[in-house]
Amino acid sequence: MSTTLKRVLVTGGAGYIGSHVVFALQETRRYKVISIDNHHNSHPRALERVAQIAKANLPADATEQDRESTEIDAHAADLTKEDEVRAVFGKYGKGGIWGVIHIAAYKAVGESTEIPLTYYQNNVSATISLLQIMSEYECTRFVYSSSATVYGTPPKIPIPETTRLQADSPYGRSKVMCEQILQDLCAGLSSSTLHALMLTAMPAEPQRWRAISLRYFNPAGAHPSGLIGEEPRGRPGNLFPLLAHMAVGRVPPDLKVFGNDYPTPDGTCVRDYIHVVDLARGHLLALDALAPTSRVWEGVGEQEAKIKAYNLGKGKGMSVLQIIEAMRKATGFDYKYEIVGRRRGDVPDLTADPALAEKELGFKAPQDLETMCRDLWNWQTKNPKGYDE
Amino acid sequence: MSTTLKRVLVTGGAGYIGSHVVFALQETRRYKVISIDNHHNSHPRALERVAQIAKANLPADATEQDRESTEIDAHAADLTKEDEVRAVFGKYGKGGIWGVIHIAAYKAVGESTEIPLTYYQNNVSATISLLQIMSEYECTRFVYSSSATVYGTPPKIPIPETTRLQADSPYGRSKVMCEQILQDLCAGLSSSTLHALMLTAMPAEPQRWRAISLRYFNPAGAHPSGLIGEEPRGRPGNLFPLLAHMAVGRVPPDLKVFGNDYPTPDGTCVRDYIHVVDLARGHLLALDALAPTSRVWEGVGEQEAKIKAYNLGKGKGMSVLQIIEAMRKATGFDYKYEIVGRRRGDVPDLTADPALAEKELGFKAPQDLETMCRDLWNWQTKNPKGYDE
Ligand SMILES: NC(=O)c1ccc[n+]([C@@H]2O[C@H](COP(=O)([O-])OP(=O)(O)OC[C@H]3O[C@@H](n4cnc5c(N)ncnc54)[C@H](O)[C@@H]3O)[C@@H](O)[C@H]2O)c1
Ligand SMILES: NC(=O)c1ccc[n+]([C@@H]2O[C@H](COP(=O)([O-])OP(=O)(O)OC[C@H]3O[C@@H](n4cnc5c(N)ncnc54)[C@H](O)[C@@H]3O)[C@@H](O)[C@H]2O)c1
Repeated sequence: MSTTLKRVLVTGGAGYIGSHVVFALQETRRYKVISIDNHHNSHPRALERVAQIAKANLPADATEQDRESTEIDAHAADLTKEDEVRAVFGKYGKGGIWGVIHIAAYKAVGESTEIPLTYYQNNVSATISLLQIMSEYECTRFVYSSSATVYGTPPKIPIPETTRLQADSPYGRSKVMCEQILQDLCAGLSSSTLHALMLTAMPAEPQRWRAISLRYFNPAGAHPSGLIGEEPRGRPGNLFPLLAHMAVGRVPPDLKVFGNDYPTPDGTCVRDYIHVVDLARGHLLALDALAPTSRVWEGVGEQEAKIKAYNLGKGKGMSVLQIIEAMRKATGFDYKYEIVGRRRGDVPDLTADPALAEKELGFKAPQDLETMCRDLWNWQTKNPKGYDE
Repeated sequence: MSTTLKRVLVTGGAGYIGSHVVFALQETRRYKVISIDNHHNSHPRALERVAQIAKANLPADATEQDRESTEIDAHAADLTKEDEVRAVFGKYGKGGIWGVIHIAAYKAVGESTEIPLTYYQNNVSATISLLQIMSEYECTRFVYSSSATVYGTPPKIPIPETTRLQADSPYGRSKVMCEQILQDLCAGLSSSTLHALMLTAMPAEPQRWRAISLRYFNPAGAHPSGLIGEEPRGRPGNLFPLLAHMAVGRVPPDLKVFGNDYPTPDGTCVRDYIHVVDLARGHLLALDALAPTSRVWEGVGEQEAKIKAYNLGKGKGMSVLQIIEAMRKATGFDYKYEIVGRRRGDVPDLTADPALAEKELGFKAPQDLETMCRDLWNWQTKNPKGYDE
């Protein structure tokens, strides 16, 4: 039986954002998902649950193909090991995988300053080698998980995509490097470079690359089913999961607020939180935008690079104190916090300018702070120990 | 017999610059050279010749150790293959190699726009993995072959090292990325990051890294012995070897000058040519500067990165027409050239500000254009077919 499902490889599919992206893909019943994750920071159960929801949601008159779309071809492979990745592509052959959503990475800013080589290897070298293997298998559609951290300390709030990229940490720089590499890969061909190519003995790389970089702001919340969500190892570094872990009693409630003398409405840092389900849906729009006929390429000349970067944020900043208050309402937990000194490297405000993604991709992030808190708490109470049953 | 020779690994040791660096190291009789080169762009004979000169130059009363310093431990290994590199370090064990001069890279600007992934893999991923293996073997002294190309189109001539890095090609960007990675690796440790390190399960990377990036301007000429020199594959892309190949009859004498309407004295592009033997000697100074007691680290605080970048150039620009004239004098060949349109991407003037390297390293590049031409021509006439005997 022939299928019209598009095979999409999701790297880091078992992670926090990855599992929600896989969910969004399956919901459409247009994709067959392949996942690569080495479970460095995730549990295989996450993807089992995603497939479980997809199967439960099948309509009564589901076709064979609908059923096929609920199966995930999950590989416990490591992107830093070329042969493991090549085996996955080899399984489907040349042209067998339609596109890749590359989400896998290490993401802890502080840790990246301590073990920069490990970060550069996992985030940059592994991306280069993934792209090379894609090249071999004539798979040239790419959606990349970038981050607002590429802007470092931005000169202007809200932050438009045209802001110069100037990350402040090895983690952030690894994202900037990957965006630059993609830029070079998607570059248009000039006649002089074509000529130069004919002079070289090296094998040509396929030329029809198209890529979309998604610069995530702060994802929060969980799928409303409560079956998948964020499950950080150790003490959570981010505010939302930290508050959830405190409320559920997994970590001591010694909450610290780093600085209340920032030039923001209540003096605490402001971030742009976006519901992870909204964020995940942005990936569907990005996949659609990889089609040469997508409006995002209108006006992009033959000689120009076929790559676009979009902020995925709400365009609305929330302060630390606002988050704590919203989580208090959602959980009923009485957070006591201590105001301490500013943390080195924190910037007062990181709010996206979401206009470009809305205009070109049709992207919106409708869900509000209350919903993020409610869905996070739903996940946390249903899974107080995360995926460990 | 115990030796006080410092073991230095030179990558790309058989290449144009590499072979002259190995020569300079052997001349001191203070180093034992290990080389890694996959001969992608070089001939194994180059290193045989270097060792041959070193042996011929031994004094009559040479010690055992002097003799040892003339042996090169040359490995035909590929830096993109981790196990091949690890085997070289494994041979000497932890702490067995004193430092690394990392010269190997692909270097053709035009080609890098065509096969960017191949360039990023060979120049960036291979550097990351080399640094990781060094880490494992507790070898944390690093001299890096960077390039003036990191400056792209510089806002100011002569170009000081403080110029923002903004390369115009994948090749140039690969050099910028490696400089940034080294910067992160050599970063000082703050107490908060030390604390964060204790919270992570990942293995720590050794902390005492010191690195020197050498930003080469345009190396030219050859060792005066005529035994080693530049041997590009195919039609030379650079002016000097092109002129030499024309004079020796290896390529047709269809010389083109790209643009004579630049804002320079004679209208043709100006570059900063430096004798390759002078350039090579700069690496000895860089190795010395890796000592914690070197004056280059004066005033660098505990929390600051232990990395420095230096221009290696003469600080004197030469135009295309000046080079042609000087080569005419050296070779006696009557070059006929055609003035054609400007080449995309060419900048009018790339002249180094050499002050910092002189002040901090004591670096000078005394040899003049005439000497570069004479030595190049000596090499070319003695080896009309390069290393192919
Ligand atoms: N969560 C955020 O706040 C945030 C914000 C901006 C950008 N991002 C980016 O989004 C992506 C996903 O983030 P997340 O929050 O879901 O993190 P996560 O850690 O939950 O997910 C990453 C997944 O990638 C996997 N992975 C890592 N290295 C791998 C390798 N070498 N081979 C195979 N799998 C590997 C991990 O096991 C994990 O499942 C990352 O690229 C991150 O940098 C995250
Ligand atoms: N020649 C110049 O004009 C110039 C200017 C600025 C910077 N540089 C830099 O100086 C360095 C040396 O340049 P060169 O002119 O001597 O070039 P070269 O090609 O003669 O030397 C490079 C050497 O590295 C080797 N090599 C390449 N990839 C390798 C790999 N994966 N494993 C092992 N060996 C590998 C090649 O075989 C070659 O012998 C390069 O890093 C280059 O980018 C050169």
